[in-house]
Amino acid sequence: MSVIRNVLIWDSGRTAAEYGDIAIDGAGNISAVTPPNEAAGETLFDGRGRALAMPGLVNAHTHVSMTLLRGLGEELPLMDWLRQRIFPVEDRLTAAHIRSGAELALLEMLSGGVTCFADMYFFMTEVAEATLRSGMRAALCRGLTGDDQSKLDENIALADEYDGREGRIAVQLGPHAPYTVPRDALKRIAAAARERNIGIHFHWLETKGELESFESEHKTAPVDYLEDAGLLDVRELILAHSVWFPTEELSRVKRDNVTLVHCPKSNLKLGSGYAPVKEMLDAGVNAALGTDGAASNNRLDMWDEMRTCALMHKGYRGDPTVVSARDVLRMATADGARGLGFRNVGLIRENYAADIAIVDIDRPQYVGLDEANAPEFIVYAGSSRDVAATIVSGRLLYKEGRFLTLDAEEIMRTASRHREEITKC
Amino acid sequence: MSVIRNVLIWDSGRTAAEYGDIAIDGAGNISAVTPPNEAAGETLFDGRGRALAMPGLVNAHTHVSMTLLRGLGEELPLMDWLRQRIFPVEDRLTAAHIRSGAELALLEMLSGGVTCFADMYFFMTEVAEATLRSGMRAALCRGLTGDDQSKLDENIALADEYDGREGRIAVQLGPHAPYTVPRDALKRIAAAARERNIGIHFHWLETKGELESFESEHKTAPVDYLEDAGLLDVRELILAHSVWFPTEELSRVKRDNVTLVHCPKSNLKLGSGYAPVKEMLDAGVNAALGTDGAASNNRLDMWDEMRTCALMHKGYRGDPTVVSARDVLRMATADGARGLGFRNVGLIRENYAADIAIVDIDRPQYVGLDEANAPEFIVYAGSSRDVAATIVSGRLLYKEGRFLTLDAEEIMRTASRHREEITKC
Repeated sequence: MSVIRNVLIWDSGRTAAEYGDIAIDGAGNISAVTPPNEAAGETLFDGRGRALAMPGLVNAHTHVSMTLLRGLGEELPLMDWLRQRIFPVEDRLTAAHIRSGAELALLEMLSGGVTCFADMYFFMTEVAEATLRSGMRAALCRGLTGDDQSKLDENIALADEYDGREGRIAVQLGPHAPYTVPRDALKRIAAAARERNIGIHFHWLETKGELESFESEHKTAPVDYLEDAGLLDVRELILAHSVWFPTEELSRVKRDNVTLVHCPKSNLKLGSGYAPVKEMLDAGVNAALGTDGAASNNRLDMWDEMRTCALMHKGYRGDPTVVSARDVLRMATADGARGLGFRNVGLIRENYAADIAIVDIDRPQYVGLDEANAPEFIVYAGSSRDVAATIVSGRLLYKEGRFLTLDAEEIMRTASRHREEITKC
Repeated sequence: MSVIRNVLIWDSGRTAAEYGDIAIDGAGNISAVTPPNEAAGETLFDGRGRALAMPGLVNAHTHVSMTLLRGLGEELPLMDWLRQRIFPVEDRLTAAHIRSGAELALLEMLSGGVTCFADMYFFMTEVAEATLRSGMRAALCRGLTGDDQSKLDENIALADEYDGREGRIAVQLGPHAPYTVPRDALKRIAAAARERNIGIHFHWLETKGELESFESEHKTAPVDYLEDAGLLDVRELILAHSVWFPTEELSRVKRDNVTLVHCPKSNLKLGSGYAPVKEMLDAGVNAALGTDGAASNNRLDMWDEMRTCALMHKGYRGDPTVVSARDVLRMATADGARGLGFRNVGLIRENYAADIAIVDIDRPQYVGLDEANAPEFIVYAGSSRDVAATIVSGRLLYKEGRFLTLDAEEIMRTASRHREEITKC
């Protein structure tokens, strides 16, 4: 039994924060939440009344190994950027590159209180192994393009080997997008997911052109397309971006197993459009937040995403009352975890996994924070800089600048060498 | 003679960064920029080739003491927020509150590499004294509303006492906004500024209603109004917000003494609109960046502002090529300093003041940074978390979590007590 002691506790199941202890059992689950300094057990972290504990942040759509491609082709139009700068470099990536890129991303995410992420890329056993070593939680898939049985087999093998591993890995099949996977192939992928009771992670309606192609090319409405392909009935369906989701169709994806992942900064940086986040929330659809890859963001910082999400929709609609701090915190914690297929993750309550970010609130910008306004202070005044510790399944992975499961210096050294290899040839 | 040694140097006068030393003379000015490890003198900071030096960030519009009001009345419509939550609390503020609120803001800004700021509020001698004690640089004015000679006298006395002090304080007169200052009073304020050769700091076209009132109430075009009031000829005219500046009139404010200060996050949070930043830059107008006060932001973090500025306009226009990283860095450094009336501030070159932010680039998200892409890495991948040191006029004010001129613990303790006083009665 270990204890996070005397912290201000907030999760999206509460209307106000409260001071207390969090007791954690040997399996890494929360066994009790007590008043401060009352829980018995070894101290994992002592907040001394000047730290806040919240559920670990969930980055619900990313491509972690793209940290090696960060900053390539800045400020170019989307297709120039992809064709001239990203695709040629991706063609050169080896398994070793994927590993060091992934590890580099894990360092950045852990230092910002991220405990869980959803990743789509290739050489995914490298990402799975890096995740397991790091102690983090992840939903992983192999990106599938075209009609390529060997890639699908690879993704299925990933599921066979890693889905459910240590309770920390979920595997989805990863059809890349409706414009890169033929409709028949998509149906076979969906059938394979249903057969094995695994999920699907899919890029969805990121650009306006993609929406238009449903009319001109597919001769169908987008949600009919999902239904017809058999995607709505998989274990969990993760629809990344969903920028151009038709608002009148949102009620049809209000389902326990479907999650729309909003990527605020990537959408702004690439000029993709404004996802209908207010309408998603109004419709009761499960919505989450993601960073997208570091090549189009360029940070894997969920604090940035939360704040940008809360601000951009207020600005775009000219209405300071929409998309609240509490909305974005719920998207970035409980609703993200649920969307990735992790039940009993994302709240600080008995029987939930002890996935926790601890925030140092003894800093200038938190003067005035109290039990009632803690979520607003976190989103609008806080930043990833304030993360004092990151805990997954009761295990301390990051504390005050130190990484307890990863060798940061070695990872940065290797990643720097790999960056040279892939860009300087 | 002191030296910032072996750092990657970038400023907005360069197209690429380069490694070197920065030598600083006894007056706090840069005396030479040399190749790395060649400058003679006592080491002020040794970057060991793994730190970047850039000009200190300039927060060109804020209300520092509003840190005490942070988080009051979140997510309310603008007028409800002001009338119900902000104005009643402001009425209770004393000189002591202004001092602790200002000091709290200085801590936050120094830890984020901000070396200079422009402030408009009241009890401004407190802000001036706090700024002088801290070692920072500031442009200060007393906010003027109505037609109140006593406030104007107070602002003039502030100018008499502090303008030019230690080369670190500039004083402007601070007419609040066209909708709070009668036109005749504004003319008298402008005349007083011209007579004393000081500047004006003015809220300008923050909301659409304000623009409309020029037609309905003032029966004039906005720039004609500025000209008619005599504002275009003051030493420096700082036009905060300028969200609804008519784009066809921008060429008329392309003047050495006029600066438009864009406040990206405040504008988004309050739903005020999108300033025509691309058009400002295209027109060659001097444009700067500001945080606005902590009650409407809620951070005094210029890294946040730079990144939000670069992203929000790309997103709003659906064009990833507009408002570049280099544009926002120039706005946040050289062009901000110039706008606030500080000449020879904002570049890293001989005879400029040694106002410098040092950034630790030995971190995961900077893998891949090189001489050519440093500004893009700073804006899109960096954050205030990475600031290793903040230097003003050659004096080290902040280094790796420690404040060398301010007592952070005492300031936070006092500010917490004051926050209670002003909100809990």
